[in-house]
Amino acid sequence: MTSNGLERALKIERHPERAVADRDTALAILDEGLICHVGFVAEGRPWVIPTMYARAGELLYLHGSPASRMLRGLAGGIDVSVTVTLLDGLVLARSAFSHSMNYRSVVIAGRASEIGDPDAKLAAMRCLVEHVLPGRWAEVRPPSTKEIATTLVLELPLDHLSTKVRRGPPIDGAADRSLPVWAGEIPLSLAFGAPHADALVVDRALPASVSGQTARGARR
Amino acid sequence: MTSNGLERALKIERHPERAVADRDTALAILDEGLICHVGFVAEGRPWVIPTMYARAGELLYLHGSPASRMLRGLAGGIDVSVTVTLLDGLVLARSAFSHSMNYRSVVIAGRASEIGDPDAKLAAMRCLVEHVLPGRWAEVRPPSTKEIATTLVLELPLDHLSTKVRRGPPIDGAADRSLPVWAGEIPLSLAFGAPHADALVVDRALPASVSGQTARGARR
Repeated sequence: MTSNGLERALKIERHPERAVADRDTALAILDEGLICHVGFVAEGRPWVIPTMYARAGELLYLHGSPASRMLRGLAGGIDVSVTVTLLDGLVLARSAFSHSMNYRSVVIAGRASEIGDPDAKLAAMRCLVEHVLPGRWAEVRPPSTKEIATTLVLELPLDHLSTKVRRGPPIDGAADRSLPVWAGEIPLSLAFGAPHADALVVDRALPASVSGQTARGARR
Repeated sequence: MTSNGLERALKIERHPERAVADRDTALAILDEGLICHVGFVAEGRPWVIPTMYARAGELLYLHGSPASRMLRGLAGGIDVSVTVTLLDGLVLARSAFSHSMNYRSVVIAGRASEIGDPDAKLAAMRCLVEHVLPGRWAEVRPPSTKEIATTLVLELPLDHLSTKVRRGPPIDGAADRSLPVWAGEIPLSLAFGAPHADALVVDRALPASVSGQTARGARR
């Protein structure tokens, strides 16, 4: 598909009023999310796999696991659709039809390719850990040469993004607005629970990467 | 692809030890999730779109929006991969390489087809609302004939499921277990915030569908 075709395809969705052209909004959604859903075509069929990711500048890094067997061997890159969705709330209207959800999502369309250079791979692996828990990289044993070699890391340029945001109260039709039905929003967020150490930990004081997260309580 | 090919393809992933054959586990994950990611092929490329869904027996219902423009017109059904992922926690190991996440996911492979019969569509729309907020259907204005006609609803048989579950502490290599690094889990869950009525609501008492959810606090 041509670049223009991609842009067009990304737009042929419903709710064009929810489309957001602002690139900063898209990048903020990518930076807030913890997992993405990667779609690709294999054996003529679509497949959607959840996996970790991280953004660095204009690139998205994907950890090969758990889809690596499917992705590996597709030399020269593979067309993917990577979607990050943050669920912000339930939207309750007066009619069944107008119920909705508040969310922010980014759909990336592009071609992912494997990173071969060990230094570039190590840098991407660092991004993947730091994306989830800032500061964690400095606390742990870094990957060995063998671990770097056996990890599949893909990079995907952020050239084609489609961002959708729905926020705010329900939008009932004029005839429904006087119905005696409770309508409004129930906010949703990802909550971080109390960390618990595994059985081998001797010093149970929380490291900075963990106490920083849980102090935030929720991700945002 | 043949049915056998589908079963095989669903299995060619990493971490076979996380695969769960138990069908009840798969159905419980589908019943707990609020959104799915639908993958399909259009113009030769994969696309992944977040959307609502509901399960009824051995069928998954998909609301056409927001992908309806893409899906509509593909008469005779469309191959889809529908994935529901519940993120349960961050897993912090002593080595960067062994970091992971606790999650439960179901990948459904199959062919989705449009529901044409208005009564079947109405029943599916009821499932979609009740999946998110049990009891809500009885509180609101039901869909009109016109609303039913303009809503695209797809059904997908739950014939081909791949369930993955990771739970529990990090798994560090033997040589790493004595490293003086905090390791363990940070639980994650979807939290329901305080509901707020929209500006038009007169009776601000919460209906049963809403107070039931928020009393649960979190989804599970």
